[in-house]
Parts: sequence; C-alpha cells; structure tokens
Amino acid sequence: MLQWLKLYRRDQLPGDISAGLVVAMMMIPQGMAYAMVAGLSPVVGIYASILPPIVYALFGSSMTQSVGPMAIISLMTAAVIGPMAPAGSALAGVLAAQLALVSGAVLLLCGLLRMGFLANFFSRPVMSGFTVGSAIVIAFDQLHTLLGAELPHWHAPSAALGIGALALLVLARLYGAGLLKRCGLPPVVADIGAKLAPMIVVLGGIALMSATSLADMGVRTTGAIPAGLPHLNLASSSSHWRALLQPGLLIGFIVFLMSMSGAQALALKRNEKLVSNHELIGLGAANVASALSGGFPVTGSLSRSAVNFAAGANTPLASLITAALLACALLAPTGWLSLLPLPVLAATIIVAVLGMLEMGILRTAWQYDRGDALAWGATCLGVLVLGVEAGVIIGVALSMGTLIWRASRPHIAVLGRIAGTEHFRNIERYPAETQPELLVLRIDANLFFGNVEAVSQRIECELATHPSARHLVLVMSAVSSIDTTALMALAELNQSVKRRQIGLHLAEVKGPVMDRLRNSTLLPELNGKLFLSTANAWDQLHTVKDVA
Amino acid sequence: MLQWLKLYRRDQLPGDISAGLVVAMMMIPQGMAYAMVAGLSPVVGIYASILPPIVYALFGSSMTQSVGPMAIISLMTAAVIGPMAPAGSALAGVLAAQLALVSGAVLLLCGLLRMGFLANFFSRPVMSGFTVGSAIVIAFDQLHTLLGAELPHWHAPSAALGIGALALLVLARLYGAGLLKRCGLPPVVADIGAKLAPMIVVLGGIALMSATSLADMGVRTTGAIPAGLPHLNLASSSSHWRALLQPGLLIGFIVFLMSMSGAQALALKRNEKLVSNHELIGLGAANVASALSGGFPVTGSLSRSAVNFAAGANTPLASLITAALLACALLAPTGWLSLLPLPVLAATIIVAVLGMLEMGILRTAWQYDRGDALAWGATCLGVLVLGVEAGVIIGVALSMGTLIWRASRPHIAVLGRIAGTEHFRNIERYPAETQPELLVLRIDANLFFGNVEAVSQRIECELATHPSARHLVLVMSAVSSIDTTALMALAELNQSVKRRQIGLHLAEVKGPVMDRLRNSTLLPELNGKLFLSTANAWDQLHTVKDVA
Repeated sequence: MLQWLKLYRRDQLPGDISAGLVVAMMMIPQGMAYAMVAGLSPVVGIYASILPPIVYALFGSSMTQSVGPMAIISLMTAAVIGPMAPAGSALAGVLAAQLALVSGAVLLLCGLLRMGFLANFFSRPVMSGFTVGSAIVIAFDQLHTLLGAELPHWHAPSAALGIGALALLVLARLYGAGLLKRCGLPPVVADIGAKLAPMIVVLGGIALMSATSLADMGVRTTGAIPAGLPHLNLASSSSHWRALLQPGLLIGFIVFLMSMSGAQALALKRNEKLVSNHELIGLGAANVASALSGGFPVTGSLSRSAVNFAAGANTPLASLITAALLACALLAPTGWLSLLPLPVLAATIIVAVLGMLEMGILRTAWQYDRGDALAWGATCLGVLVLGVEAGVIIGVALSMGTLIWRASRPHIAVLGRIAGTEHFRNIERYPAETQPELLVLRIDANLFFGNVEAVSQRIECELATHPSARHLVLVMSAVSSIDTTALMALAELNQSVKRRQIGLHLAEVKGPVMDRLRNSTLLPELNGKLFLSTANAWDQLHTVKDVA
Repeated sequence: MLQWLKLYRRDQLPGDISAGLVVAMMMIPQGMAYAMVAGLSPVVGIYASILPPIVYALFGSSMTQSVGPMAIISLMTAAVIGPMAPAGSALAGVLAAQLALVSGAVLLLCGLLRMGFLANFFSRPVMSGFTVGSAIVIAFDQLHTLLGAELPHWHAPSAALGIGALALLVLARLYGAGLLKRCGLPPVVADIGAKLAPMIVVLGGIALMSATSLADMGVRTTGAIPAGLPHLNLASSSSHWRALLQPGLLIGFIVFLMSMSGAQALALKRNEKLVSNHELIGLGAANVASALSGGFPVTGSLSRSAVNFAAGANTPLASLITAALLACALLAPTGWLSLLPLPVLAATIIVAVLGMLEMGILRTAWQYDRGDALAWGATCLGVLVLGVEAGVIIGVALSMGTLIWRASRPHIAVLGRIAGTEHFRNIERYPAETQPELLVLRIDANLFFGNVEAVSQRIECELATHPSARHLVLVMSAVSSIDTTALMALAELNQSVKRRQIGLHLAEVKGPVMDRLRNSTLLPELNGKLFLSTANAWDQLHTVKDVA
C-alpha cells in the first residue's frame, strides 16, 4: 500500500501529470456517457470518477489502472436498477450507489478471504464473447438517444447532430492519429491526441447548442448539473438490499474480471506483477468509495488504462491528478456542461463500444479449438438474447462445462516394458513386452470428482480385456492430487478387485500425494503394495508369480 | 433398449417377482408420503410410480434401479410450486406435472446431446452435504403434520399417533431385522422384511382409524382417493411455463445426479456398466411419462433400488411387476387408503429421511482433505439457511471453486540433469546439474484458462531468479491438452521473451497436443525450437552456447 509513493522519483512526475490531464479530458465525456448507459443522471458518472481512483491508488496493485465508470458494468447496472426505478430518477441514483456498495463489499470480502483465484473462472473466448455481446447491446440501446426518438421514428435535428458526431468520431478513430502525425506531431502524442476526439466533439456539440436554436427544436441535453462535490447518498429503503444482493455479487465478479484482464495486459508490457488479492481489495474499496460519494459500480477500464499508460503514467499519482482535475471541474461553474446534447453523448458511447468488437479471439479459437469457438458464440448469443446477467451465468457454465467435459476423458495408458531396459511405455505406441498376470496402467491426470467415474470405468474395462491379470499396478507418476471423491473411488476399486482376488498396487506415487494418502484408510487396507518404481513392481510381482 | 428382455432367462423370474412384490409394498406408503412432501395429494405419488418405471425399463441402462418419487426431488418440487399454488390444490397437481415435463425434456435433450458428463459436476462431499441438509429440511417440515398442528402447538391425538408410529418405525429400523432373524428367517429375508415396516405401520394406522373415533377427534387422513388409473393432466395456463423453466432445469440436474450416484453404487456390486447418456434418456422419458400420467418429478431412489436389488431383482422386469401391482391397487376399491392418518405418513417420511443422515463422507473428508469437508458443511448449511435450490447452486459453485482453486496452483519444476545420464529431475529433490544460460521447466498440469495466469507468473518468476538464462525450455511431458486461452498466453510469453532475446523451446510435446498446435500460429512464430527429448534440448542448446 502506497509503496509507489515511498519510492517516488522526481523524473516520474512529468509523465504522471500529462497522463492525469489526458485521462481527465477523456473521463468527462466518458463518465457522463456511461452514467447514461446505466440509466443515471450524467453527473453521477463524474462523481464516480473522483473518489474511486483515489481509493484505488491507496489499495490497488496496478500502477497504470484507471478506475472509474465502464461501459459493460454500466450496462449491468442498468439491467438491475432499470426494472426498479425510472431512468435518471433520484431512486435510481440511490439504488446504483447501493449496488456499488454491495459489489464493493463482496469484492472486499473476497480479497480478505484471498479468493483472487476467482479471476480464473472465465476462459478468454468466453470473456470475449461476453464483451462483444455486451457491446452490441449497449450500442443498440443508444440508437434511440442518437436519433432522438424511439425506433422506427426519429427526430431530424437530433438525428442530424447524433449521426454527424458519430461520423466525426469514426473518422477521428480511423484517420485522426495519422493526420496528427502528418501535421508533425510525434507518434505517441498523435495517438493520444486522437483519443481526445470525444472531448472535442462534445465541446463542439455544446458550442453548437449555445450558438443555435437546436434546443428549441427539441434536441435533448443533459440539463442542469448540480455544482459542487458529491455528498454521501445512501439514505435508502432497506427493502432493496435483498434484491441487490445477487446482482451485486455478479457485478462484483465482472468488475474483477474486467479489471484484471485489462491490468494483466498492461502489467505484461511493463513486467510488473499484479497481485490478484490486492486487486480485489483495491476494486472493493473503490466501489465502496463510489457508493459513499453518490456514484455507481466502477472498474478498471482497459481502453482508458491503455491511454493512461501511453500518456506516460508511471504511478497511481496520474489517477490522483485526474481525480483532482475532475473535482475542480465540478467546483467550477458547470452551466456549460448542461448544454451537452444527448445525441452527441450517445455517439461517443457507440464509438467507444464499437472498439470492443474484437474478433481476433474468435478467429484464433475457431482455427485452434472449435469447442472454445462455440463457447464464444453461445456466450455472445446468451447476452444478446437473454441479457447481460444471464450472459455471465452462461459464460461461467460454459467455461466450467468445457473443463468438466475435458476432464471426463482422462488419458490412461497400458504400459509394457521396453525389452532389456527399465523403461515402461504405452504399449499402443511402443513395442513393449507385457505379462499376462500383470496389468500396468498409467493414469495421466489428477484424480478428482470430475474424472473419477471415467477412470473407474476405464480400469474396469481394461480388467475385462485382461481376464488373466492377477495384479493391477497403477502408475501414479502423473497424478499430483487426489481429492476425497477420488480417494473413495480408489477404496471402492480396492474392495472390488479384492473380491476378485486381484492385487491392487500403486507405483511412483508423488511425495505430496503420499503425504495425503497417509491420512486415509486406503493404504492400510490396500490389497497390494506400494512400489517406488514401475520396474520394482514389475520385478517383484513377476517373482511372486514364479515362486507360486 | 430392452436388451435384457432378449437375453431373459427363466431362472431370473423368481427373483424379479419377489422384488416386484416387495418394492410395490414399499412404494404405496412411500409414494403417498413423498407426494405429501411435494405438497400434492397423496394419490399423485402412486400415479408417479406406475408409468415412469415402465418407461425407464424401456430406455434406462440400470438393471435394478427403482424409478419413482424420491424425498429430495419432492422437496425441490415443493419449493417451486409451493409459492405458486396452495398445497394439495388442483393447480399444484398441474404445476407439478408441468415441472416433470420440463425436467424430463431437459434430461432427454441432455441425453440426445450426449451430455452424460454432467454427472461429474458435484463432488461426493458436496453431494453428501446437500443430501443431509435436504433430509433435515424434510424432517423438520413434517413435524407439524406429525404433531397435528403448527409448532409450538400440538394436537394430542395426532401427536400420540404420529410419535407412536415414529417410535415403532425407529425400533423396526434398529431391531426389526435382528428380531426376524432370531425368529428363524434367513438373513436376506429378515433384512427385507424389516424394510416393509412402513407398510405395516400404515396398515396399522388405517385399522386404528377405522376401529376408533380418532377421526372424530380431529386426526387428519389422506381423504378420498379417486379410484382408477391416472389420466392425462396437462391442461395448463401457459403463463407458468416460463416460471418453471429454470427450476425444471435444476430439478432435472438433481434427478440425474441422485439417480446416477445410487445406480453406480449398485452397478459396482454387480459389475454392470452404466451408460450415463442412456440414463439421461431413461430418466428423461420417465419424467415425461410421469407428467403425462398426472405425476410429478421422479428419479431413481438409492434406498428403494437397494431393496429391489436385495429382494432379488435381476432385470427391469421387477419394476414392471411393481408397476402392474400398483395399477391393480388403484383399480381395486381404494376406500381403505382414504383412512390413512397423516401423522403416520409423516412418521414414515421422518424415518426415511433420517436414513439419509450419512456422516461417513464428512468424516473421511475431514481426515483427508479439510477443503472438501468445508464444502460439505457449506452446502449443507446453504440448504438449511437458503433453501434447496440455492443449495444446488452453492454445491456446484463450491465444487467448481475447489477445482479452479486447485488448478490455480499448478506444479512446475526446475529440471537439472543427473550427471552422466540422460535423466532430468526436479533440482529441489535431486542433486542435478544445471547450466546458467539454460532454464528447463517441467509443467505438471494441463494448460487451460484456470491455471494459465499462475503458470505465466511462475515462469516470469523463474526468469527473474535466473537472469543469465538465454534459453527457456518448457518440458511438456505432463501436458495432455492446451486450450485456446493457454495457447494465447503461450504466444504472449513467446513475444515477451523474444523482446528480452531469450529463446523459447518446447520439449517432449505429446502427439495429440502437437496435432493441435499445428493449427495455430504459435509454432511458426516460436522464438526457438521443438525438441523430442529434454536431453536433445540440453545438448543442442549447450553446443550452440559453446560455439558462440
């Protein structure tokens, strides 16, 4: 905590200041836009961009993560509070803050319980399918704001403004950096400059609204924005807490996943190490802070963090500078912001989420593993058809389903001895000698509830095809763990072969596995012996036969 | 399908007839009791015991499974339909049948998609915790029927009858078989005879009600039972289907798990092989049949199947005989059954579920693996505090959580060469020689999304502690699969070491893994070579160094 401050070097300051400035200019339109996605008053997005990054700077472990509103989390927030309160209402604001508090508490609890491994619950294809599906939903949801009316109608002045802004932003995205480079700017500066297009378009929209009579023609604007800093805003009807518990849990989970995947990509570039348990605490504290300052659920945003990084952020001081600048913006007169036309804000949202339509992972998965590609498709479709919450559950179910399905087909090899050596190999692949009374099986998987049935069935199957076997040797060289379910199945196998007067022997059991097995009754009841090596088992069981 | 009929031998008939008879006598009180647990009219339990076992005999794969009402499935049914319709109402019956249809359809679909691997989603400790929690909930729910009034009140005549029946049943359970044996009955017959105690106590209760004025004193009975076979009963308000979809899915899942765990235990004793995909189809068809005959969700019951097995059942003919006998019972005058006192029925339920309070698995887990014991406790507590549906979800989450948590700590060994040999071993455990410019890591786990971050971090950590390494060799002898997420992480590792001018080499890649990798861009972009053996890598990379 705050280690970066103790080690702060003066030469890190310019980078942090420039990054702080750039991200603040990105944050104003983005925060307001994502608050709108969440069905909240735009100023809430700025509230949620002040305290959370400060708190994250104190507790988080990433140096360049920019914590604040994020499109997908806003979509999830809208899905929860939408049915409970009208968009933009005071109740919606209170519910959103409650939701952030629940998510934050969940994250803090997970962090204290050291449950950082939760980040491993989604495969990347599933994560990508979820992101793409959510991006499409968000973009589609903004169409009516962009066009100024519910589809299929449209309000001509709003639509002209919205589509115009959209065109400008798309052009800036495609050619902005190139144009700035040709104007002589250094590549890094040009890239960052292009990222400020939304702020420029927003300022242009405000200027247009104040100079023309578009407002009188019915173009909607954000409306009055209360000046001053946010204040504690959790007065609430207690009846809502229960309804927010399960969604808060899901949102906390996605807050963590989204932030980790972004932070990991950046940490890799800087050879920094992320500590997932610290991240849980940092994000949890940031969400609690968001709740206490009238905000809504926040997370680390990959796109914003990448800008922060590119603009030179060396330490979380950059985020502190951003937060300070946003606080100043709220303390200054905010009348000008009230003129911001909503169609322009919708255009910035659509362009931002179009950047999430990353198809590379789908392509890789399609070429490499059709199952993973199907999981991508099913998750994306799930979000589109059943909604973003169902999408999370489908994503987890698919990730876990793939895992269990793969585990349910463990590799087991019948071993034979390479003549004249002490080497044992799969008899299907090598010309190896076997003994009729000896069946040697190598289990190439950790034994756990997911594969224990398959392993048992395979062993029974091999025993059936080797009716003359009097000794069954399980070579455990590839087994690093045996859970309780597998232990019980081994004990059942032991009883079963005992009834058939077949010996059950274990060879090459790893140290940690053996330590565990000593706590069980399997070893004393084992109808056979333990062997250090397969060769030992081969020789001794062979000898026994010869003597008999 | 029906293979057993083609191979039927005459000497199998006596066993099947005796088992059919015994199970029918068990089924009448049990069916009625479990219908009561589900909040349905008792006769529904008998309906659900006729068509489902017949259909299961046609499609299932277990020879001795007795399919019909089961306590935990009834509890889950009650949890779903309880809030939607008053207990015992006609609507409750329609909803229960709809629920069976949804569960059956889900099971059939899973069977057709060959998703038998779903049986591997619960670890045994979680399954046991779920069963024990459910048993306690069921027993507690029956207390008010046993005592004839809502707690803390009680209705003296009902309570006397209920507690009397309970005492008799407990005594029969504890001493019944021993007593019968001392009377000279053979052990098997004595054990089976003791299992018929519920039927005898029920008959005694009916006799008592008809002989005394207990009914006038307010002891409730099952009431009029319509004679005749069930008829199609799915006229329904379509608005309910949606509400039943998710619970139907969960119930289908538990129907499958409960049936499989029971059937597996029996199949093991008979050296029979269960085909999980056939089981899905058999159970799915049985539930659809239950729905079409006015029943409710059914499954294979371990306790009843064990009696079926012990009473001599050789083939599903035993179940067909049971079904025929129950159909006859319904066609005969059913007036006598209407006198069955509910407190006695409650007593049979309580004794039946007390038999589920099996603590052996918890004991084993506690000794062997505290994590599994905690999962037992959390699942049991989840059922008790949050209900049976939440219990299923908690159970799956804990099973998966344990899995991902274990996966997130993969074993990776730094290898060195045993001097003068071609053997490579973990340098922490063996005195092995290393080369400063060569870092050889053996990855002892399949690479997938659950451990990919941990593996990457460990590799970076080893690179940091071996700053002189110019070549990183990953020994893949223990890696049987690499999923898309892991493939992408390997590609990132490749880019990352390339930037640092370190070679990335792969050794001992298994055949199937190599086939997969050929479909990716990792191999052409690899900043190093593939080696058949670690020794090859050691020699060649060493030589390169020497020459340089």
